[in-house]
Amino acid sequence: MMPTIKDVAKLANVSIGTVSRYLNGYNVKEENKKKIELAIKELDFKFNPMAKGLRTNKTFSVGVLIPSITDIFCTQVIEGMQETFDKYNYSIIICDTRNKLENEIEKVKFLMAKRVDGIIIMPVSNNGEHIKLIQNSGMPVVLIDRLIENLSCDTIVCDNVNGAYEAVENIIRRGHRKIGIIAGPQNIYTAKERLEGYRRALNDYNIEINESFIVYSEYKKGAGYEAYERLLNLKDRPSAIFATNYETTLTGIIFFKNMGISIGEDISFFGYDQTELFQMLTPPLSVVVQPMNEIGKDAAELLVKRMNGDMSFFPLIKRLKTSIVVTDSIKNLIDTKIE
Amino acid sequence: MMPTIKDVAKLANVSIGTVSRYLNGYNVKEENKKKIELAIKELDFKFNPMAKGLRTNKTFSVGVLIPSITDIFCTQVIEGMQETFDKYNYSIIICDTRNKLENEIEKVKFLMAKRVDGIIIMPVSNNGEHIKLIQNSGMPVVLIDRLIENLSCDTIVCDNVNGAYEAVENIIRRGHRKIGIIAGPQNIYTAKERLEGYRRALNDYNIEINESFIVYSEYKKGAGYEAYERLLNLKDRPSAIFATNYETTLTGIIFFKNMGISIGEDISFFGYDQTELFQMLTPPLSVVVQPMNEIGKDAAELLVKRMNGDMSFFPLIKRLKTSIVVTDSIKNLIDTKIE
Repeated sequence: MMPTIKDVAKLANVSIGTVSRYLNGYNVKEENKKKIELAIKELDFKFNPMAKGLRTNKTFSVGVLIPSITDIFCTQVIEGMQETFDKYNYSIIICDTRNKLENEIEKVKFLMAKRVDGIIIMPVSNNGEHIKLIQNSGMPVVLIDRLIENLSCDTIVCDNVNGAYEAVENIIRRGHRKIGIIAGPQNIYTAKERLEGYRRALNDYNIEINESFIVYSEYKKGAGYEAYERLLNLKDRPSAIFATNYETTLTGIIFFKNMGISIGEDISFFGYDQTELFQMLTPPLSVVVQPMNEIGKDAAELLVKRMNGDMSFFPLIKRLKTSIVVTDSIKNLIDTKIE
Repeated sequence: MMPTIKDVAKLANVSIGTVSRYLNGYNVKEENKKKIELAIKELDFKFNPMAKGLRTNKTFSVGVLIPSITDIFCTQVIEGMQETFDKYNYSIIICDTRNKLENEIEKVKFLMAKRVDGIIIMPVSNNGEHIKLIQNSGMPVVLIDRLIENLSCDTIVCDNVNGAYEAVENIIRRGHRKIGIIAGPQNIYTAKERLEGYRRALNDYNIEINESFIVYSEYKKGAGYEAYERLLNLKDRPSAIFATNYETTLTGIIFFKNMGISIGEDISFFGYDQTELFQMLTPPLSVVVQPMNEIGKDAAELLVKRMNGDMSFFPLIKRLKTSIVVTDSIKNLIDTKIE
């Protein structure tokens, strides 16, 4: 029997991907190159680009579209992808869509023209027409963070409903009844889910929902300042506020500092997304923690599978659990603790 | 006289770049497309790809290599580029070299294979061999943040010597004589310059340099913990510490918090790079502020010029001024203030 690329990989003690990379003329580590060449010689392996299952037009590059390069959520998710893509020798091309659908559409075309092998997208909206185009071309695509309705597509998301639910539940347990929320644009999947978690928690604890406590903000850098103002200008203002993404959390911290309002004393504040610096504040900030690295890792692993032709369980929707950190940024309004 | 691309641009009231983009088959906004087509018809313009000065093989994409996607300095610099590249209709491809020269070399080859029109690099080392290769191919390249010795290349850097000098000078003026420094790898240009600024300031104020107060750390995420330990374990320990980049500043904040050492009281601390969150700490942090957005903007403008064939003042080395924020994170050791 003719030796296969698998036999070469086995003898050289490297991955099939590395051998494929070598055969297609891409860079491999010097030591692996030597091992592969030795194995090819020993097996008398003949490279046949037409051999079944071996794509020879691979570029070993993947495109990643994110809405903002300065959003810590995005950069941490990318960090999570890197290890996986490194392992399989893929280069990552990062494109910032700047929260605009038109940019997202253009960058998708751009990446397809550059002949990447697959694309990961954190979509900016609920529009998926351009994503169908990618799929129709045969190029695998994985969505992260946000599901798109009426689109059959692999997606890695967090359980946003329960993340928000837990946050609000913990605020309630410290005795708060008047809880404001900085909600995001309702055409964004995560924003919608988080608002739903807020409503559910209040309902479950029999707290009537005060619609004036629900204010909306963009999910982008610097956004949300007016939303905080609106909440604090209410006659009957909330005793606690829940911000539902990283950017609006940051805005909240700046807003309260500027106003001389002390978090944990004058106002209770719950934020979203973990950063080391949020925990360095006085008091440290209560936050919903998303498994950002895990999202990236899972998305990368799934895309690699698809790029290797394994379409099992398509479309795969994976929901990752969030966790929470509760600190003195939520004032305890309950006098006596029941043991 | 035959109408030129300039005439089309003028009549359509769009930039020459947009017309060139249209003529080369790239995406332009629907409204601009209409205006251009109208102008072409009206002028009876004939597109001649051989016309002098009009490159037809443009891809309208530029590559940007950064050492770390999670470093706020890198992401802010990219943010600064975006407006400029948007204006000229260039797409940005971002690649993270993860602080490794081998990755930087591979990504350069990768971007050249993808036929970008130009490259911006924040180099990870003093090695410029692969950059010479780009230049030899005729593709313009601009370095940011770090100069490479013995390489003729356009570069946008900060005045690191004076940035560090000013920081140390302000620590001295508050009465400190024992000042430690978390210096970076000395093969990195910025690190070398900042240490020089430290030495110069101490010299100018006639303070003898204590070599045990100079400790070295990598410039990457999580790095520097042992460096702080080393300084604080000295018998005769410094009363103030100066961290010379963003990552090691962040590590310092975490280290002091973990150790229960209060900044501004038990230790004076001066950091590098401005983040909104550094100013939310109690006390806010003293920092050297680099004009990150401006670096990005200048690099983008220069690259666009080079891509359009304007090689004036090559190699252009532009040094941008830093500024400083001085807060109570530096304890005032001087009893009486002289008015």
